[in-house]
Amino acid sequence: MKLGEMLGFRFKETPSDCQIASHILMTRGGYIKNVGSGIFSLYPPGKRIAHKIERIIREEMDAIGGQEVMLPVTIPASLWKESGRWDAVGSELLRFKDRWGSDMLLGMTHEEAVVHLCRGAAPSYQNYPFMVYQIQTKFRDEPRARGGLIRVREFTMKDAYSFHTSQEDLEDYYARCHAAYENIFRRCGIPETVSVKSDSGMMGGKVAHEFMLVTQVGEDYLAICDCGFSANMEVAECIVENVPCADAVLTKVETPDTKTIEDLCAFFGRTSEQFCKAVLYQKNANDEIVVVFLRGDLEVNEVKLRNLLGEEVHPAVSVDDVLACGYIGPMGLPEGVTVIYDRSLAGTHDLVTGANEEGYHFKGFTPARDVPGIAFSDVAKILDGGICPGCKNNSIKLVRGIEVGNIFQLGTKYTQSMEMTYLDKNGKAQYPIMGCYGIGVGRLMASVCEVRHDEYGPIWPMSIAPWQVHICAIRAENPDVAAAANGLYDALQAAGIEVLFDDRKVSPGFMFSDADLLGVPVRVILSPKTLGRGVVELKTRDKAIQKDIALDNAASEITALVKELLMLA
Amino acid sequence: MKLGEMLGFRFKETPSDCQIASHILMTRGGYIKNVGSGIFSLYPPGKRIAHKIERIIREEMDAIGGQEVMLPVTIPASLWKESGRWDAVGSELLRFKDRWGSDMLLGMTHEEAVVHLCRGAAPSYQNYPFMVYQIQTKFRDEPRARGGLIRVREFTMKDAYSFHTSQEDLEDYYARCHAAYENIFRRCGIPETVSVKSDSGMMGGKVAHEFMLVTQVGEDYLAICDCGFSANMEVAECIVENVPCADAVLTKVETPDTKTIEDLCAFFGRTSEQFCKAVLYQKNANDEIVVVFLRGDLEVNEVKLRNLLGEEVHPAVSVDDVLACGYIGPMGLPEGVTVIYDRSLAGTHDLVTGANEEGYHFKGFTPARDVPGIAFSDVAKILDGGICPGCKNNSIKLVRGIEVGNIFQLGTKYTQSMEMTYLDKNGKAQYPIMGCYGIGVGRLMASVCEVRHDEYGPIWPMSIAPWQVHICAIRAENPDVAAAANGLYDALQAAGIEVLFDDRKVSPGFMFSDADLLGVPVRVILSPKTLGRGVVELKTRDKAIQKDIALDNAASEITALVKELLMLA
Repeated sequence: MKLGEMLGFRFKETPSDCQIASHILMTRGGYIKNVGSGIFSLYPPGKRIAHKIERIIREEMDAIGGQEVMLPVTIPASLWKESGRWDAVGSELLRFKDRWGSDMLLGMTHEEAVVHLCRGAAPSYQNYPFMVYQIQTKFRDEPRARGGLIRVREFTMKDAYSFHTSQEDLEDYYARCHAAYENIFRRCGIPETVSVKSDSGMMGGKVAHEFMLVTQVGEDYLAICDCGFSANMEVAECIVENVPCADAVLTKVETPDTKTIEDLCAFFGRTSEQFCKAVLYQKNANDEIVVVFLRGDLEVNEVKLRNLLGEEVHPAVSVDDVLACGYIGPMGLPEGVTVIYDRSLAGTHDLVTGANEEGYHFKGFTPARDVPGIAFSDVAKILDGGICPGCKNNSIKLVRGIEVGNIFQLGTKYTQSMEMTYLDKNGKAQYPIMGCYGIGVGRLMASVCEVRHDEYGPIWPMSIAPWQVHICAIRAENPDVAAAANGLYDALQAAGIEVLFDDRKVSPGFMFSDADLLGVPVRVILSPKTLGRGVVELKTRDKAIQKDIALDNAASEITALVKELLMLA
Repeated sequence: MKLGEMLGFRFKETPSDCQIASHILMTRGGYIKNVGSGIFSLYPPGKRIAHKIERIIREEMDAIGGQEVMLPVTIPASLWKESGRWDAVGSELLRFKDRWGSDMLLGMTHEEAVVHLCRGAAPSYQNYPFMVYQIQTKFRDEPRARGGLIRVREFTMKDAYSFHTSQEDLEDYYARCHAAYENIFRRCGIPETVSVKSDSGMMGGKVAHEFMLVTQVGEDYLAICDCGFSANMEVAECIVENVPCADAVLTKVETPDTKTIEDLCAFFGRTSEQFCKAVLYQKNANDEIVVVFLRGDLEVNEVKLRNLLGEEVHPAVSVDDVLACGYIGPMGLPEGVTVIYDRSLAGTHDLVTGANEEGYHFKGFTPARDVPGIAFSDVAKILDGGICPGCKNNSIKLVRGIEVGNIFQLGTKYTQSMEMTYLDKNGKAQYPIMGCYGIGVGRLMASVCEVRHDEYGPIWPMSIAPWQVHICAIRAENPDVAAAANGLYDALQAAGIEVLFDDRKVSPGFMFSDADLLGVPVRVILSPKTLGRGVVELKTRDKAIQKDIALDNAASEITALVKELLMLA
């Protein structure tokens, strides 16, 4: 295609509403246009990249036996009422009423819709296992849309769902899908994507992995270790060592106006590790108070807490009339309060903690001695430099990452609630066990840009580049340049190469900055100067190759290079 | 793919909620599943057909220079407020509020979104013409969803939009797109699709065509003639001849309890053509009364009336206090009533019409004499057997059709209201002129089924069939059958043929009725009996071919047949 005929425009200035590289460059390069908060249209280059990513995803899903289906964007509420998620999911689920006042929703994930499609259609154990997938528009009413295509409200997603007759079979398939995901990210140009254990959140199920691309602009924190351990910080086990120390007598101490850990450290002349700190939450359902006790230097991991309680909580508000805030401790708490002890308190002695009385703390607190029947749970955040749950060294690194895909072992949450059954070998009705597997197409595109760009524009891998070759014809009004450039354009297209052809009457600088923004991997520059020497200039966008090649041989040499670069992924 | 592994099931009984063939067969054949009113999921065979249709559409759109883009499903109301359609379009537009209470809508057509994408991106006349298109999910809150995929609420649609600097250029491009549409319908297996002039409805613009597939189950009426004339009945010009007759004296006649044309014919001993009948409407905006006078044998075409008035109307309700219903005529109507005279009254004499007085009519009414300054408009429905606007013979046939595509010359309605401009050669700002072009993918699939089926199932054309070859291995537990069938399956797949392989342990009858429902064009049957003779049975779904072919040669012969059938479209 001729660049002069392509819809879109490119510009130099950084748009004021763009913070991260992919958002800036894909806006400046004419890939995307913002329509509303978290809603984008795609210009032709953006759509072409999305297409190629979708094709790679499709090939990999088909290779593991996936069957493509189509589920609706608009879903009757009745299906989500069956699964219980109509009530359980918060305001990120877009609910609306149709012309008859019936409750409906915009699909943000399609477990209910896929179970609706499959129930009745796989009645015998002989129909299992199977996997179906779709690539379709989804909507999630995200309160914090940001970063261009990284966090949006409307998005194109590949979502796949597998159905099994045993946990073993699910686990086998889960591993195959894990490998297919690694293929997808490698083929799309981000082989450095790592998979980490993750929280299953509103999806349900026990085992889940996220595929994370490590980058400074990521919104998630990952705990990784050189030993190979990796997990989303939300679920990473927090292991601490407590310095051995002797028991002491439990003694009440007057501590006027000493409510924070910092104040208490100063008052008692101790480090924060020697305190038993209280953090207050309330259950969303009934405002019941939850007190979490943990070592003074740690923070509560709210995802772990929510999973432990099996319900949603929020930081406590206005509980001053019930509790002596700033002076809360394990002993003497009022009735009706849920108390959680973090594992960091196990084996500790002689801590300082609140006395549940304004202006007083205890010192000499030894949890195992002073709280009869105490039990510990893991509800603290893992620390940077903390102990690795894998190799047990103090080697954890916290890094940021973008989640580019996720896979979940769902179990029977949806098949059971929605009554999808099959008959096993003995003729007994059973619930199939499900897995689900998602990849956001737009976020993947932006993620590749995030780690494959320079200051001038994206550096697209050949596998997903909007075009394979970009011809710049400098001084195309010159008949020699026009003839050579058109000849090369035709020859490359005849060879099946996707060519973007810039023969506009603009300066070389203008042409090259457009080419940089379009990020096509192979660039060919023709000018009166090079043609005078019988050559054209061949350059790759990643600067690995920069050389003159004979015009006579250019089409075949370029075709060979494109094929070579396609093979790399 | 092996049929036994495919998601879906097929059955014999006609579902009680299905009336038309495509709905019945695509439900019974496991192509679609109803999720809610006018909302469907697609099983793998349905999705595969949709994919092929989309590919054909894409190829034809690309061939006329189309650039694929992506516009959102969820659109901020602000864009539709700019164009005025937020208020102008009725309840078929699904409006909702997002988490912040902002007005939004589900796109049912994307003129606003595409103008938003293009404005600013094509600032110079040199950027024109261009065409962009997308294939994306749409939602139309249709009150009368019916007929399976024929009339739905959620649908996948290809919508294209072209932009031009002159009406001439639009018309040139419109003709190219018209030809591309003919290619699409021919390639999808319905070459008999005809284009008819149509109403532009809520889209705006003056010239529009619908592509109609003539079938008894169509919802639209078309006026066609052997001379080549064709138009949607909504816009077809109604031409009548009036029998010459002399003027008569205008005379008031007492006609007690004689309100209908039938009663009046009997009372006066005349035919209905000799009456001037009144039909009453009210404007939606302010309930103002509109009286349409037309020849007694004709009916009002409400689309023409709406277009003439430039606003919406509805049949009048409770106007008895203002008008003498049943006795309404042109003379003596109250003030404030809009009066329209249909062209069928031009040149008439000596008609009977109401006297605007309960129980009285006039006879001897001659419009041109008795109504000073009378003007006539075309607001009547064309008649079956009526005069063809093309050849002027009494040769019009009214037939029913399904609208499988439409094209519109939009003019500057959207570019002007949304302030999209470009600079012309003289540096003057101008509004681009638009065309738009739609095809519904699912409706097209169902339409093909509607005209390409027998009582046993769909007969898919090779171009869009879910698979190209269907192997039935009868008694696949027989080692010879298994070896031959598996060998053929592998050989065909290696040759790039899409094969559905049925090696289930079911009876031949069961196997064949499933195959009929899946409608794959080429069927190959292997059984101990045929293999004993060294042959397999080759059958096309349309029964054109039914013969034995040598097993040794089967793969190459079948491959050649598939390629031949692919070339036909």
